[in-house]
Amino acid sequence: MLFNHRFDEFAAQAGRWEQAYGSVVSYRIEGPSRAAQKGAVAALVRSTGSTGSRLPHTGVTEYAEGARKIPAAAVTAEDADLISDLVSRGEVAIHLVLTPMNLPSEASHNVIADLRGSEFPEQIVIVSGHLDSWDLGTGALDDASGVGVAMDVLRIIKAVNPKPKRTIRFAAWMDEEYGGEGGRAYAEEHRTDLINHIAAVEIDYGDGRPLGLSVCASDDRIAPLSRILHAIADPVGGLVNVSDSPGVDLTAMNKAGVPAISPLQDARKYFSYHHTAADTFDKVRASELRQILQLIAPLVYALAQHED
Amino acid sequence: MLFNHRFDEFAAQAGRWEQAYGSVVSYRIEGPSRAAQKGAVAALVRSTGSTGSRLPHTGVTEYAEGARKIPAAAVTAEDADLISDLVSRGEVAIHLVLTPMNLPSEASHNVIADLRGSEFPEQIVIVSGHLDSWDLGTGALDDASGVGVAMDVLRIIKAVNPKPKRTIRFAAWMDEEYGGEGGRAYAEEHRTDLINHIAAVEIDYGDGRPLGLSVCASDDRIAPLSRILHAIADPVGGLVNVSDSPGVDLTAMNKAGVPAISPLQDARKYFSYHHTAADTFDKVRASELRQILQLIAPLVYALAQHED
Repeated sequence: MLFNHRFDEFAAQAGRWEQAYGSVVSYRIEGPSRAAQKGAVAALVRSTGSTGSRLPHTGVTEYAEGARKIPAAAVTAEDADLISDLVSRGEVAIHLVLTPMNLPSEASHNVIADLRGSEFPEQIVIVSGHLDSWDLGTGALDDASGVGVAMDVLRIIKAVNPKPKRTIRFAAWMDEEYGGEGGRAYAEEHRTDLINHIAAVEIDYGDGRPLGLSVCASDDRIAPLSRILHAIADPVGGLVNVSDSPGVDLTAMNKAGVPAISPLQDARKYFSYHHTAADTFDKVRASELRQILQLIAPLVYALAQHED
Repeated sequence: MLFNHRFDEFAAQAGRWEQAYGSVVSYRIEGPSRAAQKGAVAALVRSTGSTGSRLPHTGVTEYAEGARKIPAAAVTAEDADLISDLVSRGEVAIHLVLTPMNLPSEASHNVIADLRGSEFPEQIVIVSGHLDSWDLGTGALDDASGVGVAMDVLRIIKAVNPKPKRTIRFAAWMDEEYGGEGGRAYAEEHRTDLINHIAAVEIDYGDGRPLGLSVCASDDRIAPLSRILHAIADPVGGLVNVSDSPGVDLTAMNKAGVPAISPLQDARKYFSYHHTAADTFDKVRASELRQILQLIAPLVYALAQHED
């Protein structure tokens, strides 16, 4: 079975790349099991993203309980189009040589650093990225960029004011890509004091130009932050989107009530490179990372200092 | 030995992409033998072109007589930069697994079609592309695009005037990529009537926007064509470059005196994709091919009709 969905058709609306990606990535995640339930012997999935560089986009695939675990593979956009065209002309036989391996789990760690609060040290604002990356590339955009910006937020705030009111916690999450164990472990370990987490910020769209902020929280948790969010988003375009997706790392925390905030970025470049062999250091523009930093550092500082 | 030359540094001058490519591709062609002569055990060559999609650019490599045939491989621009950086910090060991094969030669053919001249049928204007392509991609830009335009030139001229004065000969050359046997065989077979070849045109820069014409010939052969070349080039920018490179297919004919003419194209896209896995059909823009056609069809027709 060939899933030849098209990211570009979903991504027309500025600021809705995350939803566009969500719409098409489900083919990669759930497609093989759905196909198996319909009798398919294998599933080929068009690479998710907008690249035209014949790069396969890979990523996690989940086998549904009870479904046959049929072989599944990513094909490039170019090859998906070619196969589709051939299928429209008659029967197509494909010989697959796939060599994936599931290695046993190993212990790994979130990396966490605190700039301790002077007035309400027990109240916490998280700023984060994720430490792991999908293979093929080196994860420069997904998500070394986010980790770098998050680290720099603390450096800058410390230079401006080494004693913020609340604790600012840098986190580099482990295992965003393969299921989110790092974020879940954190939420589990801190379940009694999540109530003291003001918000958790994560940066995970590479160096895409910021257009505003995206926030995932219940209305009553957004209300007290609203003034800050709009003031901070204003200089970069003013968009403040309410999202129903907190991102993998912040899902468990968010379910427990912690508002999840991320920069709303132009993610076209990110979705062309992430999870491909071309996600390498040369792609990252420092000038664009600085724009994200100029948005997120004031946000985190405002959340750490506000009076409400 | 790592050859980390940079196409972009050579390509700054518009209209000099061919020379830029020539400057860097010599590392791929001759580098391994030069390296062997200096005691290298293997040669890695930065991919020629300006792409940033972690695509290796491959192509013919020649072993010099007497030089040890050491292993040689293409590395992507990204990996060449990484290796260079590591080398600057200390010793780097690389484990190569290379599986190239040289298969025995097979008979193959140029494809030739004539629109026979009504007045001077023995006088010939060639319009051509090459039929073979390097592997990895499917050769849509290099050089199905050129073959397609050359075919269409005859279709259009036939529609306008089915009886041009001179013979217009379409040629799709075989073996441009691996040494130029097709062009050589043609020149050898036609050696007694090359004197009747007015000019040979080849299109081989993909769908890059035309900026003028490039001509390789002795001054006395250019002079009678000069008025035509300038008049035809005028609407697309007017550049008429005199080049010392006739291109692989036309080399033997050109040595025997036949002027070699090609469209001068913006070749940035071409050099990013050709000889990579991404040289596929989807890259070709019909609108751009039409611009090349609008330059070359009048050129060929003018050469077939002129009075001099």
